[in-house]
Amino acid sequence: MTPLQINEVAPRDGLQIETVFVPTADKIRLIDALSSTGLARIEATSFTSPKAIPQLKDAEDVVRGIQRRETVGITVLVPNLRGCERALSCEVDEINLVMSASESHGLANLRMTPGQSLERFADVLRVTASSSVFVNASLSTAFGCPFEGDVPQARVLELVERLLETGVDGVTLCDTTGMANPAQVGKLCDAVLARWPDTPLTLHFHNTRGMGLANTLAAWQAGITRFDASLGGLGGCPYAPGATGNVCTEDLVHMFEQMGVDTGVDLDALLAVSATLPRLVGHDTPGQIVKAGKADRRYPMPKR
Amino acid sequence: MTPLQINEVAPRDGLQIETVFVPTADKIRLIDALSSTGLARIEATSFTSPKAIPQLKDAEDVVRGIQRRETVGITVLVPNLRGCERALSCEVDEINLVMSASESHGLANLRMTPGQSLERFADVLRVTASSSVFVNASLSTAFGCPFEGDVPQARVLELVERLLETGVDGVTLCDTTGMANPAQVGKLCDAVLARWPDTPLTLHFHNTRGMGLANTLAAWQAGITRFDASLGGLGGCPYAPGATGNVCTEDLVHMFEQMGVDTGVDLDALLAVSATLPRLVGHDTPGQIVKAGKADRRYPMPKR
Repeated sequence: MTPLQINEVAPRDGLQIETVFVPTADKIRLIDALSSTGLARIEATSFTSPKAIPQLKDAEDVVRGIQRRETVGITVLVPNLRGCERALSCEVDEINLVMSASESHGLANLRMTPGQSLERFADVLRVTASSSVFVNASLSTAFGCPFEGDVPQARVLELVERLLETGVDGVTLCDTTGMANPAQVGKLCDAVLARWPDTPLTLHFHNTRGMGLANTLAAWQAGITRFDASLGGLGGCPYAPGATGNVCTEDLVHMFEQMGVDTGVDLDALLAVSATLPRLVGHDTPGQIVKAGKADRRYPMPKR
Repeated sequence: MTPLQINEVAPRDGLQIETVFVPTADKIRLIDALSSTGLARIEATSFTSPKAIPQLKDAEDVVRGIQRRETVGITVLVPNLRGCERALSCEVDEINLVMSASESHGLANLRMTPGQSLERFADVLRVTASSSVFVNASLSTAFGCPFEGDVPQARVLELVERLLETGVDGVTLCDTTGMANPAQVGKLCDAVLARWPDTPLTLHFHNTRGMGLANTLAAWQAGITRFDASLGGLGGCPYAPGATGNVCTEDLVHMFEQMGVDTGVDLDALLAVSATLPRLVGHDTPGQIVKAGKADRRYPMPKR
């Protein structure tokens, strides 16, 4: 059975929507601790404008401050050419470009249509061509858009094709606002894997509607082994107050380990890192294992 | 595709662990509202000793007070012969007997070993033989025990066999403390369905470790169409403070409806009933759809 490759996104996708600014030294400690747990990749920060996302204004300092390990790919979000240049100057292993599959979400979130995003990506790829950096593209709203609703599978396939023509090395299909269901996930993964069996394909789920792990399971059953996940279930969507965020890394690792699937991750070490989050972000996190304990947890018999 | 049959357990499994006593009239209103949503069955209360579970001390009044509908089976938990007689006097459609698959959980929870529970069931079945009541048996800790750990599949199969020999009409396999994983669920469902394809088999999951819907999906993929679920995700396990409880009915219905599986349930009506729970129990509930809205919820584009 192929071991999983988990991309930890809490330092970027999680921290960017927190109201507090997590001090740079704490971010570095968090990423270093995550690096030692066996995760395949860590999305460490975003090279966005500090005005747009002040929570991640210390991107250079974070990437330059963390300990690098052979076994852990450091990836960063890059919104444009300027961000790409900043990322390359920090010698990241991977850059992650983001576009929306739906026009309205692209305009609302990035002020770009999908077509404009693809043009921007081509500019970035001309710059990265002379480097060894891995270029991934995350396709938001691949399972539905909170503004316009259904995003047809044919449209997603067309955009994946255009992304690969543009020259990206890998693609992440994102269920940005937790609209996917397991049947839809299975069908889309089948279709993409059938057409591009050798392209590194990652799935990115949210637990907004409680289906995060069910969708992860459906993707894995279809043959997907690369997943984004967020420590503690940090992250999420500003449109669903009270709802949970990204699929929780330690809950995902726990499920697969219980199923006998190798995740490469030391779950106890990961849980110890997750337990430090409430102090960093100032609130409880939606993760379940950190509260309930692993399934092999034993209790003493109650006294009568 | 076989439509699902959902057994709503919040009025019993949910309310029994709440600290407040929900007034009888409110319980009746809740069950009547649930009855009109298309649910196949409702576990309305428990005919336990009022001293053991004071929250459900009004069992007779609740069952006699609710509106009965042809389409909704009213089931009640029955711990012993006395409870069975009380239940039959109220003309319930079904009684639900409970035993543990593991000895330590049986002793801790029921003060009975599995063998003693089976003897007790035989007494009850002698009384029900002359009635038309459907007798279901719920097997707790069928996927693991919080005190002794693994519960081997062979032991579960042996207990299912003994239950059916004793004369029960249906069996529910319960993941009492949320220890099941989807691989284990698939294997156990396959094994039980292969041996007893015509026995009504229900699965009962908890979301203690975030796998409630993933386990539900795995059971459905194995051919299970009967599920216990609890409105709002009420219920749970006293051993995991802060963790979520039973799998949430409206989240389960939402997942299957999104997948195109007929649940028979009017989800909007169910959500309206779920929204009344915080007032009844005095706290927020773990259900996600009631907070995030259904996947087809649309948002206005943000203004720039």
